[in-house]
Amino acid sequence: MGNFKGKDILHGNQFSRKDIDGIINVASGFEKELKKKDSLTLLRGKILATLFFEPSTRTRLSFEAAMQRLGGGVIGLGSVESSSVAKGETLADTVRTVSQYADAIVIRHPRTGSAKEAADAVPIPVINAGDGTGQHPTQALLDIYTIKKELGSLKNLTISMVGDLKYGRTVHALAELLSLFQARLYFVSPLALRMPEEITSGLRAKGIEVIETEDMLKAASGSHLIYMTRIQKERFADLSEYEKVKGSYVLNKAFLDRLKKKITILHPLPRIDEISADVDDYPGAAYFRQMRNGVFVRMAVLAMIFGKA
Amino acid sequence: MGNFKGKDILHGNQFSRKDIDGIINVASGFEKELKKKDSLTLLRGKILATLFFEPSTRTRLSFEAAMQRLGGGVIGLGSVESSSVAKGETLADTVRTVSQYADAIVIRHPRTGSAKEAADAVPIPVINAGDGTGQHPTQALLDIYTIKKELGSLKNLTISMVGDLKYGRTVHALAELLSLFQARLYFVSPLALRMPEEITSGLRAKGIEVIETEDMLKAASGSHLIYMTRIQKERFADLSEYEKVKGSYVLNKAFLDRLKKKITILHPLPRIDEISADVDDYPGAAYFRQMRNGVFVRMAVLAMIFGKA
Amino acid sequence: MGNFKGKDILHGNQFSRKDIDGIINVASGFEKELKKKDSLTLLRGKILATLFFEPSTRTRLSFEAAMQRLGGGVIGLGSVESSSVAKGETLADTVRTVSQYADAIVIRHPRTGSAKEAADAVPIPVINAGDGTGQHPTQALLDIYTIKKELGSLKNLTISMVGDLKYGRTVHALAELLSLFQARLYFVSPLALRMPEEITSGLRAKGIEVIETEDMLKAASGSHLIYMTRIQKERFADLSEYEKVKGSYVLNKAFLDRLKKKITILHPLPRIDEISADVDDYPGAAYFRQMRNGVFVRMAVLAMIFGKA
Repeated sequence: MGNFKGKDILHGNQFSRKDIDGIINVASGFEKELKKKDSLTLLRGKILATLFFEPSTRTRLSFEAAMQRLGGGVIGLGSVESSSVAKGETLADTVRTVSQYADAIVIRHPRTGSAKEAADAVPIPVINAGDGTGQHPTQALLDIYTIKKELGSLKNLTISMVGDLKYGRTVHALAELLSLFQARLYFVSPLALRMPEEITSGLRAKGIEVIETEDMLKAASGSHLIYMTRIQKERFADLSEYEKVKGSYVLNKAFLDRLKKKITILHPLPRIDEISADVDDYPGAAYFRQMRNGVFVRMAVLAMIFGKA
Repeated sequence: MGNFKGKDILHGNQFSRKDIDGIINVASGFEKELKKKDSLTLLRGKILATLFFEPSTRTRLSFEAAMQRLGGGVIGLGSVESSSVAKGETLADTVRTVSQYADAIVIRHPRTGSAKEAADAVPIPVINAGDGTGQHPTQALLDIYTIKKELGSLKNLTISMVGDLKYGRTVHALAELLSLFQARLYFVSPLALRMPEEITSGLRAKGIEVIETEDMLKAASGSHLIYMTRIQKERFADLSEYEKVKGSYVLNKAFLDRLKKKITILHPLPRIDEISADVDDYPGAAYFRQMRNGVFVRMAVLAMIFGKA
Repeated sequence: MGNFKGKDILHGNQFSRKDIDGIINVASGFEKELKKKDSLTLLRGKILATLFFEPSTRTRLSFEAAMQRLGGGVIGLGSVESSSVAKGETLADTVRTVSQYADAIVIRHPRTGSAKEAADAVPIPVINAGDGTGQHPTQALLDIYTIKKELGSLKNLTISMVGDLKYGRTVHALAELLSLFQARLYFVSPLALRMPEEITSGLRAKGIEVIETEDMLKAASGSHLIYMTRIQKERFADLSEYEKVKGSYVLNKAFLDRLKKKITILHPLPRIDEISADVDDYPGAAYFRQMRNGVFVRMAVLAMIFGKA
């Protein structure tokens, strides 16, 4: 694994396959340690600043839990306040100021490229927790960690990604990371929400087998794991179009019965109705475990950038 | 005392008289320990999540102080954020997600029954910090703790409850807990805001002497302690009716002079004008001490659910 | 240095020259200690409550970082919540309640005199973090600390203050503190925003040389340090008047070239355009270091009021 001490975590593509193996190992080590003892002290005295210029409570709480589980402290801006702190001030000035108080920064911002801009302004490590339609690298890492943990290996997997593949930042980044492990990928979506051409062609250029289809059952039948995403109403100009596709991508008990094989199910959450509640007790339903894995992976990333992994 | 490790704290009636004695002892122990040393470490490494779907800053700060005084950490949602986290997501999904980050949850929610719903969704302990017109058990416990501490005993007490007894969640729960200790109770209110019939009859069925009256002076004259509550304007259809009763339930220096005996005064706060500022220096005015006791009681409850009491 | 244990920090004029020397020493000691070790434990187990009735995220984060770097904990109200906690409740009742949970309070409030009012209501120490047009003593202290650190001494300095000297709470307090050290002061502002007469006459009565001018270059040429402030549009009835003066008080690379001498530059931040980004790399540009010094100074103040300095 590369040395991430003092480094920014901005983009999924900054990790080699070796890096990812390393991060998984560190995260897995923390997961085991937390089972044995209540309290770690690796980052005692360190302060993480969370700057959320748009709400993402899930991600914020996950980072705060990760930092505290390592013995560190947190100071933070909520989205309401952050809009006031930035009033008339450049993003660079805001993060420069915050960098005087904290030892690392997690930033969420609606503008693509903003995390890079923040990182360039300060000498302390900056973690991108989502910059518009851009990146959210710790999300991709926790997805990979969950796949490894649920399936035992990242090798020779076939994975279906379902739903909004056009706008879904999560599936773009995950597909990219999975390409390091020679996965076979099904992309299941309505035509209007297909995976962008540059991504599929990029994957194929790396020798990854990509199958695009509208048929979720067919894809799932050939897959070890299905990664569901939400289809957002507001993406559709024609609402009747939305109502039509919405129904076709619902994973429920009936679907699992038709499937006639075991499968692992992930979802970045929140879900609305694309996974029914009657699936929650299914052994392969891993989406809440996925949330917990986010804490271990973020612990690993934090320990790494502080040079303590 | 029962074993509360891993248990939810949802309703005042889950405590036996022995449980309450036990909680008082644990809280009292923490109160003494905090006088001797700055810092306890009983819950080091544990994380409490505070989920406030409606504002109750007082309760939130009290829980956060309690958790930190035991060495634990806190992650939390304010009411502004919590509305966004829940957008389109079920309460069960929200608490299931948060349960992946934290070791226990405190929840405040406007809907009666929501705390139970949250508790049923997750394996970690959930503390109800107010669910609509339902329960707020740690408030009742801190009231009991304060009465014990101020009066030396919970036995053979006569207690007046004054103000809005119809809608006041606090007085309902307190009356119920006091019934375990054979208290005599005066219920002092305007007719429109009388204690609900099912509560008074329930108390009487347990052999508790209940006296309902509109005369605060008469009740106080026979009582060891007076529990004041706020009468809310918005409860009255006829505003002139409100103005009339409002004046009759003001506890001020003049009232205490007429009373010709010492009495202990509690109030869940905030007060508006039902207790005058000229009462604040009166030795029996215990409503700010009551706030402090809330921290000790919540420390006890937290220690108990983590199996560390 | 006086004994500040248990004392309120309300006004810049409560400090003698000896006190300021002492605070600088304590802050400097913490700055050095933090370079050697990650974690201090001086205030372990102590809780600071931050009550911000108007937003000042910069100040809040600085106090939170200071408290955590000393090992203490923080509970807090944001400006959104604080408005709800205070609904119908007196400020005195709010701080009395909070004083039951915390060991010290930092308060920011739009009303002049509110910090004193809060301090009078509670036995625990209260730090004024800005009360309307009144005081913000830790800001003045961090400015003094920065001047000492950047220039090596507080003696025999000539300092220019530039911009809005009429409404600028910061420059009023700083001028007062600097008068303890016999500084020579240039006050540079448009006529409409001159330093209030009572301040200049008060300084002169103490034997301080005060030069008022509209010429920033002249003032800077004779100064060791220039303290820039923002000129707020909304102060001007006639907008064309604003546009005229605005341009004259911009510190940029071109100005520094014309200046032909080294100078130290401070600014309380946020800046809008009164200091150009092309100045940020100038060795004397100390405004971000000034932010960091705020943490050390606030650590000193916190340690002092807890009797641990």
